[in-house]
Amino acid sequence: MADAITPRDKDYSQWYLDVVRHAKLAEHSPVRGCMIIRPNGYALWENMQAALDGMFKATGHENAYFPIFIPQSFLAREAAHVEGFAKECAVVTHSRLKIEGDELIADPASKLEENLVVRPTSETIIWDSYSRWIQSWRDLPILINQWSNVVRWEMRTRLFLRTTEFLWQEGHTAHATSDEAMDETLKILDVYATFCEDYLAIPVIKGVKTPTERFAGAVETFCIEALMQDGKALQAGTTHFLGQNFGKAFNCQFQNRDNELEYVWGTSWGVSTRLIGAMIMTHSDDQGLVMPPKLAPTQVVIVPIYRSDEDRVRVLEAAGAIESSLREAGVRVKLDARESQRPGWKFNEYEVQGVPLRVAIGPRDVASGSVELARRDLRSKEVVPVEGLSAAVVGLLEEIQTGMFDRALAFREENTREVNSYEEFKEVLEAKGGFIKFEWDGTDEMEAKVKAETGATVRCIPFSSTGKWETGDNPRVFWARAY
Amino acid sequence: MADAITPRDKDYSQWYLDVVRHAKLAEHSPVRGCMIIRPNGYALWENMQAALDGMFKATGHENAYFPIFIPQSFLAREAAHVEGFAKECAVVTHSRLKIEGDELIADPASKLEENLVVRPTSETIIWDSYSRWIQSWRDLPILINQWSNVVRWEMRTRLFLRTTEFLWQEGHTAHATSDEAMDETLKILDVYATFCEDYLAIPVIKGVKTPTERFAGAVETFCIEALMQDGKALQAGTTHFLGQNFGKAFNCQFQNRDNELEYVWGTSWGVSTRLIGAMIMTHSDDQGLVMPPKLAPTQVVIVPIYRSDEDRVRVLEAAGAIESSLREAGVRVKLDARESQRPGWKFNEYEVQGVPLRVAIGPRDVASGSVELARRDLRSKEVVPVEGLSAAVVGLLEEIQTGMFDRALAFREENTREVNSYEEFKEVLEAKGGFIKFEWDGTDEMEAKVKAETGATVRCIPFSSTGKWETGDNPRVFWARAY
Repeated sequence: MADAITPRDKDYSQWYLDVVRHAKLAEHSPVRGCMIIRPNGYALWENMQAALDGMFKATGHENAYFPIFIPQSFLAREAAHVEGFAKECAVVTHSRLKIEGDELIADPASKLEENLVVRPTSETIIWDSYSRWIQSWRDLPILINQWSNVVRWEMRTRLFLRTTEFLWQEGHTAHATSDEAMDETLKILDVYATFCEDYLAIPVIKGVKTPTERFAGAVETFCIEALMQDGKALQAGTTHFLGQNFGKAFNCQFQNRDNELEYVWGTSWGVSTRLIGAMIMTHSDDQGLVMPPKLAPTQVVIVPIYRSDEDRVRVLEAAGAIESSLREAGVRVKLDARESQRPGWKFNEYEVQGVPLRVAIGPRDVASGSVELARRDLRSKEVVPVEGLSAAVVGLLEEIQTGMFDRALAFREENTREVNSYEEFKEVLEAKGGFIKFEWDGTDEMEAKVKAETGATVRCIPFSSTGKWETGDNPRVFWARAY
Repeated sequence: MADAITPRDKDYSQWYLDVVRHAKLAEHSPVRGCMIIRPNGYALWENMQAALDGMFKATGHENAYFPIFIPQSFLAREAAHVEGFAKECAVVTHSRLKIEGDELIADPASKLEENLVVRPTSETIIWDSYSRWIQSWRDLPILINQWSNVVRWEMRTRLFLRTTEFLWQEGHTAHATSDEAMDETLKILDVYATFCEDYLAIPVIKGVKTPTERFAGAVETFCIEALMQDGKALQAGTTHFLGQNFGKAFNCQFQNRDNELEYVWGTSWGVSTRLIGAMIMTHSDDQGLVMPPKLAPTQVVIVPIYRSDEDRVRVLEAAGAIESSLREAGVRVKLDARESQRPGWKFNEYEVQGVPLRVAIGPRDVASGSVELARRDLRSKEVVPVEGLSAAVVGLLEEIQTGMFDRALAFREENTREVNSYEEFKEVLEAKGGFIKFEWDGTDEMEAKVKAETGATVRCIPFSSTGKWETGDNPRVFWARAY
């Protein structure tokens, strides 16, 4: 691709799309709002899945799989739920196409008795099963997660951030008591926050959503919120305390320890391919993608440099030895020995694609027993000895991971400001963006007014130091414009 | 569940469904033809995915993800393809539900300009991308795999074997030459055969399909075929040499090394959750599921046995030590120390669920430094010393894996018969079932006649010893009744 990446300060939105395209992460498909996740993007998602899946299993969850189709009558069982999702559903009405003349049509003879909806989320189909699986407190808790695709018919889409189809995980748990369900809701919020901070190197604020931003069918929605480089917030994950709402909607009752029938308590929670968008907008720069080493499919690329055939042999041998020793040290390493591309082209390619470390090795390096090591995050270079290179690389990958988090945290702290009046709020929002701590009177009206006038919304009501969220009459909450 | 598993000789179909249900692998959902894969079944699928995914990556393939929706006009581009799939498609016609009175309806105002089909397979949407990605021979080959859900509106469904929605992987590769595409098609057939034999312990026959059984849009379809315990065959996987059919349908051309424009050559290939059905019907027995150790989510379960509190402490301590040493040896082990269930109940539960090895340990075992070790496959028991238990278990798991394959192979050999006349063919088929090697005259008419009269079809034309399939005028091919 000859065209360059648009600089961030010129057009942040275009810069984002350019990075996604140049790094070959994803692209638009011919199907409205649906994206194609290219191998580079999917490999990132696989690493994210592996890390999250391990954390879910370590906290006692199992994976399962429920149908992609939901009978429309199921959606209707929970009033808030159908209200929230009916307007953005892919509706399956027929089971056959028919060739009529030169045209394909949905065969009228195959019209379904009941419309099916492609799942926008799976609470309803899963709680229908739970109502059959659960009889007694002995059957509880049920701790199930599902990796799947979901569809929400979005009007305005943007690669990774908001697409009609996206990939995600959705946890759905069932419990015997309200406390246990709430504990689960908060435990997963911690899992999400840990994942974002330790793997994606994105600092997040944990808190609770206001009623207007609550999941359709939840009693309480918790979230983690991150701040992007352009001063806009991004909701990175949510966990929902469902109370007995879905237990009641699906008549899911159990015999409790006192031998009384009670409705089952529930939670649900999810993160999606949106996190890839969050990663890009937290760390990347005008040269392209920057990936945290823990998730980078390739952590180190080795680029051999030579002209003569004689040098070729020596350089490739040395490069191969480095590759082996790095692999043995547990590093995800790739030796790019293609002759169809020149070293300069490769340097540029791996910079755009965000590979954390680049090792360049030429004849003089072989002679001196050293290599050139380049960091993607700081775009710095140093010459280091081959002796001890593996240990140096392992240490450097950790340093990069930590450094990326620290810089993102510093950015967020610089861009989180407290204000004491609505005038000040508007000034700061306009001039600086970022998170603004400002009081909220607890009403939908204030949110609606601020949103209409400024575009900002309450991102979350933060947890106080006691571990509960602030519930004073006028708590100070985090406001921001958001993705 | 108090009800028992139906014996195989009484009703094989019911036995199969009973095993699936008792082992908690899957169940029917309220959505016609769609199944719910329960945690036990999904954990098996995850292990199958991990093994296959490793084999795909080792042969140079990358994963990616394409949209679940396919515009109906895409299906229509390849004549045979639309003919094959149009009759079993979930058709999305609207993007919104609307509440009208007490009812939900597909909102007429949201009718789509073009119908979308939930992918029954992804050749069309992927070749549309390839036509944009490929310009030159330098862009080839493209070796992409996708893990996904697909939907084919089946009239008669059976858990795992034939369901409206199923999980699978679909490989889609693009090549510069016919030979290279054919090599890929056969290479993946080998990968599938190796996976079936080494992991699932299912012996398979490799061969080519007759034109009537060919994939809709392929030039040639290759398959692996397995024999189930009831003497019926099961197609376990297929690979398709697509020639230039999709290259032409999607105008996907490339500049070849001679600077001429040429259509791209293609392959596609897939295996699905159907393999779980094949595994069940190859190995399981009247007591329930039998799983090959390499894929069993739990390979060894430890059941502690005690009455007094004093014994409890000693037994649990010894059981815990065994668990640790097995885990260290790389064994997937589970210690079931629940007090809510008795040992006898647990013995039965893990037998039904097919855990390959059970370790039982009581006070007398602790005193004598031994345990009782029970094999699920042979239902045999022996007392073995705790000293050296890990090595013994590792060896035994390998022995079970090999033994299961050997018994399945012996069964297939016993149930593969050659016949020399149609009369004999019918007699053997009726009396014994199994694979029958019998000539095929190469016509669709003979296949249709035999199928109508006996229910048997040509499962495959076997590869000859030269590595090509037999192409004599009247080759002897494998016939069988099939799932």
